[in-house]
Amino acid sequence: MSAGPSRAAGRLVVVGLGPGDDAWLTPEAARELATASDVVGYGPYLDRLPERAGQQRHASDNRAELDRAREALRLAASGRQVAVVSGGDPGVFAMAAAVFEAVEDGEASWRDLDIAVVPGITAMQAAAARIGAPLGHDFCAISLSDNLKPWAIVEKRLIAAAEADFVIALYNPASKARPDRIRDAFACLKLRRSGATPVIFARAIGRHDEHIHLTSLETADASLADMATLVIIGSSETRLIARRGAERPFVYTPRSYGARR
Amino acid sequence: MSAGPSRAAGRLVVVGLGPGDDAWLTPEAARELATASDVVGYGPYLDRLPERAGQQRHASDNRAELDRAREALRLAASGRQVAVVSGGDPGVFAMAAAVFEAVEDGEASWRDLDIAVVPGITAMQAAAARIGAPLGHDFCAISLSDNLKPWAIVEKRLIAAAEADFVIALYNPASKARPDRIRDAFACLKLRRSGATPVIFARAIGRHDEHIHLTSLETADASLADMATLVIIGSSETRLIARRGAERPFVYTPRSYGARR
Repeated sequence: MSAGPSRAAGRLVVVGLGPGDDAWLTPEAARELATASDVVGYGPYLDRLPERAGQQRHASDNRAELDRAREALRLAASGRQVAVVSGGDPGVFAMAAAVFEAVEDGEASWRDLDIAVVPGITAMQAAAARIGAPLGHDFCAISLSDNLKPWAIVEKRLIAAAEADFVIALYNPASKARPDRIRDAFACLKLRRSGATPVIFARAIGRHDEHIHLTSLETADASLADMATLVIIGSSETRLIARRGAERPFVYTPRSYGARR
Repeated sequence: MSAGPSRAAGRLVVVGLGPGDDAWLTPEAARELATASDVVGYGPYLDRLPERAGQQRHASDNRAELDRAREALRLAASGRQVAVVSGGDPGVFAMAAAVFEAVEDGEASWRDLDIAVVPGITAMQAAAARIGAPLGHDFCAISLSDNLKPWAIVEKRLIAAAEADFVIALYNPASKARPDRIRDAFACLKLRRSGATPVIFARAIGRHDEHIHLTSLETADASLADMATLVIIGSSETRLIARRGAERPFVYTPRSYGARR
């Protein structure tokens, strides 16, 4: 867009694949992936894409977001059409922020590259859709990953969310390195919200091993959460609709506040 | 799914169209729209869909969500394959919660219908993608529509969000009937957040008349917001990356908290 006449017009687009399979890959994302000269991303995301003649792949480790972003920016600066692939929505706890961090800290010319973001379905939307409409009223999304922020700010946000009665979606609830964060979050919320509050563990949604577990804050087992899990905690308004037999109830949060108590 | 042997197996699916044109319509949504016997929705959303031989359309007014949901449930109960169309993500301030309200309050047999939700890109994701990655860290989504909840709960949530330093996405910021809500929200936030905080007005994203306006909390003009506008208010961490010439800065919220102050 702003490339000078002396260099090829490179481009970088951060593409959201959505969760799971291609049922949630938007036409915009598919078009960008089909026309990119270079695809940069975490190995397992690249493995989801069909091989294309002439298209270069640059796989990297899960943890190396900034290195990956810089590599993509260098490629775009050299005139390549680069797609950085991201699970879910790249704008929600994913690659887009990493790319802009790299732009801000990187070479001055990177700021004038043509950079675009293609949104995707993010995990909380996919999880919510599978069980009903738990995000049907005001909600917040919090990442429990504390290698990027102090736990004190996470706790402050959990308390604020509980007291203002938001539905809460928790990303990155646990990992091998920090298995206790989701346990700490539940403990914090139990002090402020009814034990009967619905809690949804949604694991690997859209993948062949997709699993949804519906429980309550009182009985939630933190050890069920891992890096592939998205946890939704209802507000005081979130309701279950019982169904016959063994079918899981629907879970939803009404549009009106206070009308059903 | 649980239809008894005595009646045809009807189905109801709430389908998210995403904002704007079909670039964000997922393959799952397209498949559901192609196979439905009946499509139910707000007139302008139905107008976006191609006519299909044999498919019945049931257009309704914007305000009649519950009536629309009940009509769709009656059709599904009679054995039809019904798609209820919704802008954006039906699970986010849209039709899915209305359908489950109608199920809970309606005929007992409706609870055992096969009901599914197909997620879509919601306005805040599309708006964020257009300008960078403002939702790159913890955020909340609040509807300012106060015909469904008391203003006191909206204000409580704005205060909590401001104090816990969430990025804030505001849906339904204003309408002809209540033009002052967004003004009140800005006034509430100005007391608690720096005047320099980035504010994004994103109007009609994905449509031909799409418009993004970047300003600050200090200078935000509430009269720019209407029912087609999504407003994003940054956290204390949200940053602008200046670009050469007249190009709008990128706006993003870093993944790490406190690292850049």
